[in-house]
Amino acid sequence: MPSYKVTYFPVKALAEPIRFLLSYGDIEFVDDRFNREDWPKIKPKTPFGQVPLIEIDGKVINQSTAICRYLAKQVGLSGKDDWENLEIDATVDTIHDIRGKIAAHHYEDNAEAKAAKLAAAKETVPFMIGRLDEQAKKNGGYLVSGKLTWADLLFVAVLDYLNAMAKYDIIENAETLKALRTKVLELPKIKAWVAKRPESEF
Amino acid sequence: MPSYKVTYFPVKALAEPIRFLLSYGDIEFVDDRFNREDWPKIKPKTPFGQVPLIEIDGKVINQSTAICRYLAKQVGLSGKDDWENLEIDATVDTIHDIRGKIAAHHYEDNAEAKAAKLAAAKETVPFMIGRLDEQAKKNGGYLVSGKLTWADLLFVAVLDYLNAMAKYDIIENAETLKALRTKVLELPKIKAWVAKRPESEF
Repeated sequence: MPSYKVTYFPVKALAEPIRFLLSYGDIEFVDDRFNREDWPKIKPKTPFGQVPLIEIDGKVINQSTAICRYLAKQVGLSGKDDWENLEIDATVDTIHDIRGKIAAHHYEDNAEAKAAKLAAAKETVPFMIGRLDEQAKKNGGYLVSGKLTWADLLFVAVLDYLNAMAKYDIIENAETLKALRTKVLELPKIKAWVAKRPESEF
Repeated sequence: MPSYKVTYFPVKALAEPIRFLLSYGDIEFVDDRFNREDWPKIKPKTPFGQVPLIEIDGKVINQSTAICRYLAKQVGLSGKDDWENLEIDATVDTIHDIRGKIAAHHYEDNAEAKAAKLAAAKETVPFMIGRLDEQAKKNGGYLVSGKLTWADLLFVAVLDYLNAMAKYDIIENAETLKALRTKVLELPKIKAWVAKRPESEF
């Protein structure tokens, strides 16, 4: 059994999909959370100045989505063929595009630019969430192919972060996505992880 | 033989990696470029209000990177195992993060916010390009695993777009990446595509 270590800030955010997938697969991992004040020391030692990182048997790599895709294959949450994997990958990148629209106003320091980005997000985020909800409706309540895939775990795992930045529940009007969230959080391994994970705002 | 159609604005940008991969694999495709003034009509008919789209035998899907990963598998430019694919995927997402840093100032309307984002990019982009250059040096002149993969094609295909937004050649001091660009552009199928593709600024 390889050894796994996930390194990130003491929050859920971009590391949480990785932690969900490891937990789902019953893979033990070191949940390495560093203090924000140590980041300037850690940053230059990372491959590209970014976290989360995963260390698998001593090999270190960053990029959360790439890591999730790799882990999904280990734990049986990939698609059954190339086309299903394309649909999963496209859905995951759509979720990240939604994150990008929300992050654009959340992380903007300039008041005028922040207001413009918030106004843009008020149009695009409900539109994209609406389309994602329709997609889930067509797929029997899952994002892709009528069964649980890593796209579902990733979506539910980052939702707290997206909602914290957006300052509202972005799926409040998306009935199928709300049911999906409940379904994922009720998976026994995910439920156990959520119960034991350290508290954090997002 | 399935039929392929790529739909995008009349530019290289995010569709060019798809066009590179199809060309590399000698796959015929309809290069569907619409006029900017038609975008408001086209947008609501797309899956998530975004392009590029690919249509494969009548099935339409968006998200350029997901499409590239799918095509890479068809044309033999994926990794040989899960770990190599993780390294390729992580590298591709790093390239997109670099794009994000550059796009942040390029697409910013507010002068003050634009200046702040340009200042940030002046630090992070050379740092990340430097690390990517080191990575290529360690990998025998390719981004991953000492051989040509779709990460190399994607990188070279989006470089014109990145450089147009950045207003300088972001790899001007990165000798291994410059050699990689030359190598990719000298691949016979890529060279033939570049010679025949429509002219566009980026």
